[in-house]
Amino acid sequence: MTLETLRDLYVEQLQDIHNAEEQLIEALPKMADNASHEELQNALKKHLQETKTQRERLQQIFDRLGAESGDHTCKGMAGLITEGEEFLEEKVEENVRDAALIASAQRIEHYEIAAYGTARAYAEMLDRQEEHQILSDTLQEEKHADSTLNEIAIKVVNPEAAGVR
Amino acid sequence: MTLETLRDLYVEQLQDIHNAEEQLIEALPKMADNASHEELQNALKKHLQETKTQRERLQQIFDRLGAESGDHTCKGMAGLITEGEEFLEEKVEENVRDAALIASAQRIEHYEIAAYGTARAYAEMLDRQEEHQILSDTLQEEKHADSTLNEIAIKVVNPEAAGVR
Repeated sequence: MTLETLRDLYVEQLQDIHNAEEQLIEALPKMADNASHEELQNALKKHLQETKTQRERLQQIFDRLGAESGDHTCKGMAGLITEGEEFLEEKVEENVRDAALIASAQRIEHYEIAAYGTARAYAEMLDRQEEHQILSDTLQEEKHADSTLNEIAIKVVNPEAAGVR
Repeated sequence: MTLETLRDLYVEQLQDIHNAEEQLIEALPKMADNASHEELQNALKKHLQETKTQRERLQQIFDRLGAESGDHTCKGMAGLITEGEEFLEEKVEENVRDAALIASAQRIEHYEIAAYGTARAYAEMLDRQEEHQILSDTLQEEKHADSTLNEIAIKVVNPEAAGVR
């Protein structure tokens, strides 16, 4: 494949994110199952539902573009998920495990924030306003998911893992 | 290794970031060599120097903690770098290549923003104020590097890649 224009790259970036979301839909239930705190389980389950909606939104964009989601494998997300899963095999105290799950989930959220931010900038540049709006909606959800995880870490999990609560 | 406390996880997270920085020090020169725009080359070269300083700061923290940087491989960063390098093998118009380099570099910056944000939160919780300050300095640099890349993308590279400049 030759990438000649920003539009070509826009499609390729969307394909990368679509595969990243597919991988995440597989990984999130395992992460939730390994969480001890109910707040964290709920946040991960809620994000699983959001991620499924985000995948549908990407399909809407492919339809608008007359493009396919393709069979690209997102190596970035694959690395992030592998890193998090390796950790689950270690022997870890349960509060520390929850802190580590959040650390991993926030890396994943930041991958998505960067990726959707890039795709949204391309949509703006290419004057594709409806797609820009769709991508903005998802980007806000990703930022909100990151903030929720941050709050659970700082208020609940980290103090318990540090033994100060 | 058994992780019993937040302090154990703090050290493990710092080891992960240290290896991520080592990988990035290897990868950034290749990224800069493949950039066409001078602004982008300069931003990547500047970030290489910052990354070397950030690695030294991590060593200072290991010294304070009486810990080693270890031989952990950061799978997250490995995936992000592999993803970016694969792209360099594709046939790509040079403005589009620069846009893709920025997309890859921003994913890397966001990995670091998440990772340093996590480590800094642990330093706060563990009442390690000097380390908290060191990690804050790096975190600010990472956010600034991300903003610089964003500006180069939006003002210079994306318009050229879209053929509107």
